[in-house]
Parts: sequence; C-alpha cells; structure tokens
Amino acid sequence: MTAFAKRAEEFRPSPVRAVFETAMDPSVVSLAGGNPDLSLLPGGSIGTLAATLLADRGPEVLQYGSGAGTEAFRALVVNLMRSRGSQVTEDQVQPLAGSQAGLDLVTKLYCNPGDVVLAEGPTYVGALGVFGSYEVEVRHVDIDGEGLNPDDVAAALDTLAREGRRVPFLYTVPTFQNPTGVSLSTERRRALVEVCAARDVMILEDDPYGLLAFDRGADPAPTLHSLAPDHVIHLGSASKIFSPGLRVGWAVAPGPVRARMQIAAEAVLIHPSMLSQELAVAWLGSPEWPDVLDRTVALYAERAAAVTGALAEHLGDRAEWTDPTGGFFTWVRMPGAGLTDVLGRGIREGVVIVPGAACYADGRSSDAVRVAFSGVTPDRAKEGIRRLASAVRPA
Amino acid sequence: MTAFAKRAEEFRPSPVRAVFETAMDPSVVSLAGGNPDLSLLPGGSIGTLAATLLADRGPEVLQYGSGAGTEAFRALVVNLMRSRGSQVTEDQVQPLAGSQAGLDLVTKLYCNPGDVVLAEGPTYVGALGVFGSYEVEVRHVDIDGEGLNPDDVAAALDTLAREGRRVPFLYTVPTFQNPTGVSLSTERRRALVEVCAARDVMILEDDPYGLLAFDRGADPAPTLHSLAPDHVIHLGSASKIFSPGLRVGWAVAPGPVRARMQIAAEAVLIHPSMLSQELAVAWLGSPEWPDVLDRTVALYAERAAAVTGALAEHLGDRAEWTDPTGGFFTWVRMPGAGLTDVLGRGIREGVVIVPGAACYADGRSSDAVRVAFSGVTPDRAKEGIRRLASAVRPA
Repeated sequence: MTAFAKRAEEFRPSPVRAVFETAMDPSVVSLAGGNPDLSLLPGGSIGTLAATLLADRGPEVLQYGSGAGTEAFRALVVNLMRSRGSQVTEDQVQPLAGSQAGLDLVTKLYCNPGDVVLAEGPTYVGALGVFGSYEVEVRHVDIDGEGLNPDDVAAALDTLAREGRRVPFLYTVPTFQNPTGVSLSTERRRALVEVCAARDVMILEDDPYGLLAFDRGADPAPTLHSLAPDHVIHLGSASKIFSPGLRVGWAVAPGPVRARMQIAAEAVLIHPSMLSQELAVAWLGSPEWPDVLDRTVALYAERAAAVTGALAEHLGDRAEWTDPTGGFFTWVRMPGAGLTDVLGRGIREGVVIVPGAACYADGRSSDAVRVAFSGVTPDRAKEGIRRLASAVRPA
Repeated sequence: MTAFAKRAEEFRPSPVRAVFETAMDPSVVSLAGGNPDLSLLPGGSIGTLAATLLADRGPEVLQYGSGAGTEAFRALVVNLMRSRGSQVTEDQVQPLAGSQAGLDLVTKLYCNPGDVVLAEGPTYVGALGVFGSYEVEVRHVDIDGEGLNPDDVAAALDTLAREGRRVPFLYTVPTFQNPTGVSLSTERRRALVEVCAARDVMILEDDPYGLLAFDRGADPAPTLHSLAPDHVIHLGSASKIFSPGLRVGWAVAPGPVRARMQIAAEAVLIHPSMLSQELAVAWLGSPEWPDVLDRTVALYAERAAAVTGALAEHLGDRAEWTDPTGGFFTWVRMPGAGLTDVLGRGIREGVVIVPGAACYADGRSSDAVRVAFSGVTPDRAKEGIRRLASAVRPA
C-alpha cells in the first residue's frame, strides 16, 4: 500500500499510550487521565433537554449548520467569557469540536514547518502532539510555582530572534495548568502580555480549567485575553464544566482572525455538532448548572486534599508538589528518585500516572509525575498515592 | 498581530462563499447546498432515543470516549458496510466527526506538499479545499456518463510517473457522484481498482450517497472497497442517511492504517461526539429507519424528476444533463452559454447553483452547473430551473 507522508511519523503509537491501554484493569488506580467527575450531572434532566431540542427543533439541530456556530452558542460563550473577565463580541467567537481542535487549527493557520512555538516546561502533552504534526519545534520555558517568568520568556524570545527563528506564538495554560496545577499570578500576566506584544508574538491561551477554582468566592485571575485582546487567541472548553463526550469548545480571537479560523475549520469538520452546541447552551444556561458546578468543584477540592495529604504521609521526606487551588492536577517532583520507568513500576504496583518526561517535547528526563485527582474518589486517590510511593521506593 | 502561515492562503474567503452567504433570502431558490431532507425524521422518537441514552448512560456518553469509537458504533458500521457489499471487521472501522474529517485525515497522513492527487473532473468542491490546505496538486481525469474511464486513469498515472511525481491516491466518489450524479459501472470499478493496484496507488473512495439509489430493489454497484480492500480507504457518512448536524462519519481501512488514522484523529479531536455516535447507533439500528430512508429517497427521486422535467421544458434546446438514478445532484452542461458569471446572474433571477468551475482545482472555465435537488420541493425545484433558464438566456 501507498507509503505515509513524512508528517505521519508524528502519529506513531507511543510506549506511554500502549501502557495506558493495557492498564484499564479496574483494580488499577488511574491518576493519569484528566477526566471530569460527572456523577452530579443529572442525566435525566439533560436527557429531557435533548429530547425537547430534537422534538421541537429536530429539522434544525439535525441539519447542516453554520461553520460560525449557532447564535445561541456564540451568545453562551460571550457570557462564559464574561465570567472569566473578558469582554467579547459574538463575531469574535469561533465554535470548535473541543478545544483540542483549536490547538490544531491555530497551529495550522500560524505555523510553517520549522517554526518555533514557545511553551511552558512542562506543558500539556496533547499540545505537543499537535505541534509535532505540523513539524513545529517546541522550546520550553521552565516554570516555577507562579508559572511562567516573563523575564525568561523575553530572554527566550530574544534568543530565538537572534537565531533568526520565526516564533508565531507562545502556548500557555495560565490557570490551573496542565500538568502542574500552577496558576500564573496577576502581575506576571500583565508582564507576560507586554513582553509578547512588544515582540509581536501572539499568545495562545488554553483555558479549560479557568472556572474550576476551589475557592468559589475568590476573584479569579484575569484571562490573558482580557489583558490584551488583540494579541491573544483564547481557547475555552465545555469538557471540564459540563461534558467532554459532546466535544464542545471555542476560540475567541479578533474578528478577522476568527473569520479565517472558520474557513480552516470548515475544511476539516464543516461545523461542530449542532446537537452538542445546543445541548451545551441548554445546560450551561440552565439555572441548575452553577450549583452542579460548585458541588463538583467541591469534590475536586476534596480529592486534591486527599492526594496532597497522602503525598505528605507517604512521600513527605523525598517529594515536593504543587498545592492545587483549582483544576485537575498536581505535579510531584521526586529529585533523585530515578523515574525512568516510573510508569511501568507504577502499573506493577497498581497505579497509573503520567510520567513527567511526556510533558516535554525535547526528550529530557524528568524527576516528576503528573497526578490527576479529578476522576477518583478520595479513598482511591489515597490508595493510588500509597502505591506510587511503593513504586518509587528504592528496591 | 502575528502573520499567518503559508498554508493559510488556502483558507481565504472565496467569492462563491460570499455570494452564498448573501443569498440566504428565503425568496431565493437554493439548488446549491447538498442538504438532506429531514422532514420525515421523527424528531420526537429521536428525542426519546437521546433522552434514554442520557438518562440511562449519561456518565458514559457525556464522558471522554475512545478514539477508536464506541463498540456499538463500530458494529453499526460493519452492518452498514455489509449493505454496501463490503465485508469489514470492527478493527478496520475508524469513527469520524463526518466524512469531511476523513478527507482531511487521509490527506494529512499520505500527502507531502507537492504530491499529486488524482481526482475526477469535476469533483467535490470540499475535497479541493482539503487538498489545497496540504499544498497538494490536483490533476483531474475528466469523467463521462459512466464516471472515470480506467484507461484515462492509467494514462494519467503513467504520465505522472514519467514526470517523477508522487501520487499517494486517487480520490473518487464512484456512486451518485458529487457534483455530477454519475455512477461508475461495475466493469469500470473492476478495471479501476486493477489499474491503481498495479501501480501501487491507493484509492480514496468517498461514498456518502451509496445508500440513496432511487430503485430501492436493485442491487447497488459494489464498493471499490469490496473489490480491493487492501488498496482502498472507504469513507462513509451518516449525513445523508440520517443527520449531518450530528457530524458522524467513518473510514474503513486495513487494520494498521486505521490504527494510524486513530492517532492522527485524536490529535485533532480526541474522539467524535459520544452522543452523536450512540444516537446514530440507536436510530440507524432502529426498526423505523429503513422505512424512513425509503420514503425519503422517494422524495429525492421525485425531486430529481421535477428538475429533469423542468430542464427539458426550459433548457431542452441548449443543455444536457445527467439523469440521476440516486443521490442529490445533477450536472447541467450548457455548451456555449458563457457561464462565467452564472452564479451572480442566477442570484439576480432568484436561484443559487454551484458553478461548474468551482468543482475543478485548476481554475478552468466550465460550461456546466451543479444542481442539488435534495433539499427543495418539486415545485420549488421547477421554479428554480425556470429562473436558471432566465439567467443563462442570452441578454
């Protein structure tokens, strides 16, 4: 059969992936996948919303729709963005079949092969796959407990400029970051957008976790988009506040950029599922949603506490970790523990985690692992950390 | 703001597109879009299916799923492929968020910039957009009333081989073709797969209309996939037999190819909507579906007859057209009519069609238009053709 294209090399099965697939045994505690907890979602009520949509507006929601999304969906995103501190107009909203599709789309529109994307070190593993598929080089800027240091970003950009490399954008998850759980401070946000705007480097702000602050009363940090709307493309998602299975996300971008995104998105997908868009409108616009979200986030906070408590108990003497204030993840560094086969050793002990090395593009080794607490009960989370401690204990 | 990548040139708004958007006035008869008729779909019953799925299996259909699709969806496709004459195993089925996504995926996996894809002349306009986005050159092989002539394909491939060009695949819609409505004869199907297999050129068979034969009792022509399963990637779609709004399609490919497709698809979309997949399973597996499909196809046959009757009445002296035996389209050639502004002239008369020139990659002029009869009542179809005749009448 015909040979694959050069870029198909990027789509080889990874060893991590193979292990994940064999570790679906229910006796194994998975601290790997960033799955939302859906136990508080009222399936019956959501079913009724879907039934009403199909009974009353079947010929509309089952038919082809616009690549610009439905009007109601764009209006929903305007509202959600307002709760993230961003003033947005409907012509700046591009619906997506999940924000992963936005990573693909923005990379496709902005990156030539050989370009460099700047990203946090460590970063979201799924973004690395996208950048690789467009033959883009990733340079990491290591983060600390407050996220990216703007001075480090400036230095990296200046180095790349001296090297003559084109840098279309900085990719960042500034709030409750994947994989570390770290959030960028407000001061650093302001400095970061200045550093990038001064160098005409766009920021791709990936914000799936922004509405998941454990302290429900606190003011969230402003989105990067709210600070520099002409220099930031913002990606949002319904996956962590409602449902990943429906594949609903969005991009917010200046009007002319959004229009170009629509054309590129249509070539791949025509448009995102009409039913998914309208079901997101119905649920995320319903009076029950805020309460269900609050109670679900309380579960995440409880699970985060269970994980950090168990870390203190079992690994307190040789690990350090993020104390998450929102989102799904903590990042556990174990200096000197020698984590080269931490995934395999974990599975032998009955726990799956994401090895830190997977979160870097450059093949470096890592003394850390990502722990996702979102999808496991506190007891399972504690047991998982106990097993992780056994796995990394010197033999 | 940051400049776009080179390939973003391919995603410019087209003049055709701009006209389409301004022609959404309900007084205009649209013979442009290939929309299915959904009037016979029982929205209430489908709503009940969705409600049951969400009430009984909400935490499953709302959660992340596998990039390989749900088991039930793969089983559904195995059954649908059987009704198209193809024996398929579940590990050869890749779910897609619409078959357009399959065009993108296969092009991404197989085509380097500068490669050549062979395609029918004329061909599906949405495929041209995809090929362009990967900087692939399209060479057309003109079709006749029986579709592609295998000898012409062989000659084109041999010419390209002499030119040293890489040809990863032939793209074809062999059954009720978009845009012409023509179907490839069984003899030509056999010859075509031989011609391509002998030259190690894969066939990308796009088959959204295969189940829409007007003669519901006749044996359909075999899929190209059924004739050479190791040399064909087959794309199928629920858009024309159920709903385009849900974005459900599939690819069928040899197991190792399918596995690679899954990895590439996950980088863009994680997986297609779980609710869409399972709703397709529920409806296309329901006892009502075959009857609704039969009655809907009867509508298409009636509309096709209305269009061809009106063509005979109004343009009989200077046009020739395909007599469709299934699908959504006919292709109307008007030699010497001078169709350079047929779209604008049609809109001034109150009818929208797709100008033939849009169905070629090479910018050639065309003496034809595509007429889609699927989405209009017979009376509207007749009125549309009357207006088309006025538009192309010499001033």
